Amino acid sequence: MTAKRILITGGAGYIGSHTAKLLKARGIEPVVYDNLSTGHRSSVRYGPLVQADILDTMLLTETILRYMPVAVIHFAASAYVGESVEDPAKYYRNNVCGTLSLLDACRETGLDKVIFSSSCATYGVPVTLPVAETAIQLPVSPYGQTKLTAEHMLADYAVAYGLHYVALRYFNAAGADPEGELGEWHDPETHLIPRALLAAAGKIRELEIFGDDYDTQDGTCVRDYIHVTDLAQAHVLAYDYLAGGGDNLAVNLGTGHGSSVLEILSVIDKVTGHKVPVIIRPRRAGDPPALYADPALARHMLDFEPHYSDMATIVRTAAPFFGLEARL
Amino acid sequence: MTAKRILITGGAGYIGSHTAKLLKARGIEPVVYDNLSTGHRSSVRYGPLVQADILDTMLLTETILRYMPVAVIHFAASAYVGESVEDPAKYYRNNVCGTLSLLDACRETGLDKVIFSSSCATYGVPVTLPVAETAIQLPVSPYGQTKLTAEHMLADYAVAYGLHYVALRYFNAAGADPEGELGEWHDPETHLIPRALLAAAGKIRELEIFGDDYDTQDGTCVRDYIHVTDLAQAHVLAYDYLAGGGDNLAVNLGTGHGSSVLEILSVIDKVTGHKVPVIIRPRRAGDPPALYADPALARHMLDFEPHYSDMATIVRTAAPFFGLEARL
Repeated sequence: MTAKRILITGGAGYIGSHTAKLLKARGIEPVVYDNLSTGHRSSVRYGPLVQADILDTMLLTETILRYMPVAVIHFAASAYVGESVEDPAKYYRNNVCGTLSLLDACRETGLDKVIFSSSCATYGVPVTLPVAETAIQLPVSPYGQTKLTAEHMLADYAVAYGLHYVALRYFNAAGADPEGELGEWHDPETHLIPRALLAAAGKIRELEIFGDDYDTQDGTCVRDYIHVTDLAQAHVLAYDYLAGGGDNLAVNLGTGHGSSVLEILSVIDKVTGHKVPVIIRPRRAGDPPALYADPALARHMLDFEPHYSDMATIVRTAAPFFGLEARL
Repeated sequence: MTAKRILITGGAGYIGSHTAKLLKARGIEPVVYDNLSTGHRSSVRYGPLVQADILDTMLLTETILRYMPVAVIHFAASAYVGESVEDPAKYYRNNVCGTLSLLDACRETGLDKVIFSSSCATYGVPVTLPVAETAIQLPVSPYGQTKLTAEHMLADYAVAYGLHYVALRYFNAAGADPEGELGEWHDPETHLIPRALLAAAGKIRELEIFGDDYDTQDGTCVRDYIHVTDLAQAHVLAYDYLAGGGDNLAVNLGTGHGSSVLEILSVIDKVTGHKVPVIIRPRRAGDPPALYADPALARHMLDFEPHYSDMATIVRTAAPFFGLEARL
């Protein structure tokens, strides 16, 4: 008997590769579709790789017909907020037209289950905290806009063509595979915790903190960090949910509580024994002071609970990839 | 000396062809780019036609390099609200990826002025009337969503690449060329006034009225009808505005007052001497009872004033295209 397969676009990337690992552990073969523009060949360890572009609808169609996956998990996207402001064309093309290309290949082949990598960036600057799924979605970056457009596309395809989907709105993904097989490598690295670890390891001069005069407990921005293995697990649960006949759904993936920049630096100090050298910069436009999820819907609908998302575990699992030993 | 040219995508369509006529009268040659999927070859009377698809970025680029237009007016789009619910793929492809294709050709060639055909459908069901440009945009159809996404794209391209644009949010386009050269032909015809005239002329059995129990003066839906020649004029004014160095802008094009379905039928009766046979149907989902523009911003920024948009003129100019003589 052939193993059940799931297609993972962008499966050579950070969250995609961690999801592939959990699928494999569940006995589902992950078929990775990735152009390796930002993903890593070395992260494709759990199933075959089709190296191709998301805009290539024909090849997507052929890949689906060849592997006959039971669902697709769609990570492939450009994902730098700052770059999306400087080069929005790339974001509309890869994230909007790319998703359209995938959905059309699904339609063509009858593949009717899609799990989509969305983002809390679709909410923009939220009016109330924690952010529930009913909050109005008014993104403040092209990146957030393209993710929101893709969500609309999924909802419209569901009505028109009977697509079934779960859109997962990630808060801040962080950490790395607890078994050390997979890490987080971005080039350029723009995420806070990796940059802080690079600075702690002496690989960059200092960590830039954008604003230390916000109205938060210590003046620095508060975000909801969720461990990548927990995120990956949510994708597996979302597949189970759709396979069990669940309704179309958009849910937050967060822990429900926030950590400030300074709190994170203190955990890094404790876990690795290294102080993070910092420099304070002015606030960045569009950065809300605090952002954290209402996680109730994912708990209720998907039975999702984070298990690795305390900051010490996040730092402990991430540190080795930046040449730091975790002492705790 | 070569005449100044403006590229008109979708220039063989209803509003596009009327705009081409006014540009020609102003001494600007309209270069029509249209795949004739819904446009009419016979409506391309005022300049050359390039018969090609908006998704063909290469041919768009070649067309721009060949004709060196000073601006582009972008009408090319799929524009049936109902069809967009049934076949959203077509709308995301033509309206979102199509606009991206055009904007990339503009970027490639340095063409930096775009006038965009947007819609009051981007507002969805407005909370307050009249609808000002500051109203929140939450579309209720894929059509409205794709127009809104294109607006976001323009705004993002302006920031990133220095594009200059005016987005014109049409309320209900109606009427036909007062000189009788151009009319309104859609297949299928879904617009209210043409359908009413078809019914008055005996070419369809009856006009369907969707709901006569709304909270409006006579129970039927109220919309803001604006004459297509007035709309066309607004595009010429938008070009003047951009040529004069005006800032990026999104404005409503409406009259500021609404007409109910029954009021329109009464005008048709008076102008043509024909009663419109009607049948009352249930309300349609997503139809707000009343919708009309706050027209102040277009007046202020573009010096725009409608001149043909009283209902009698709308009906008088449209009637001949449906085989009806206007008696008034």
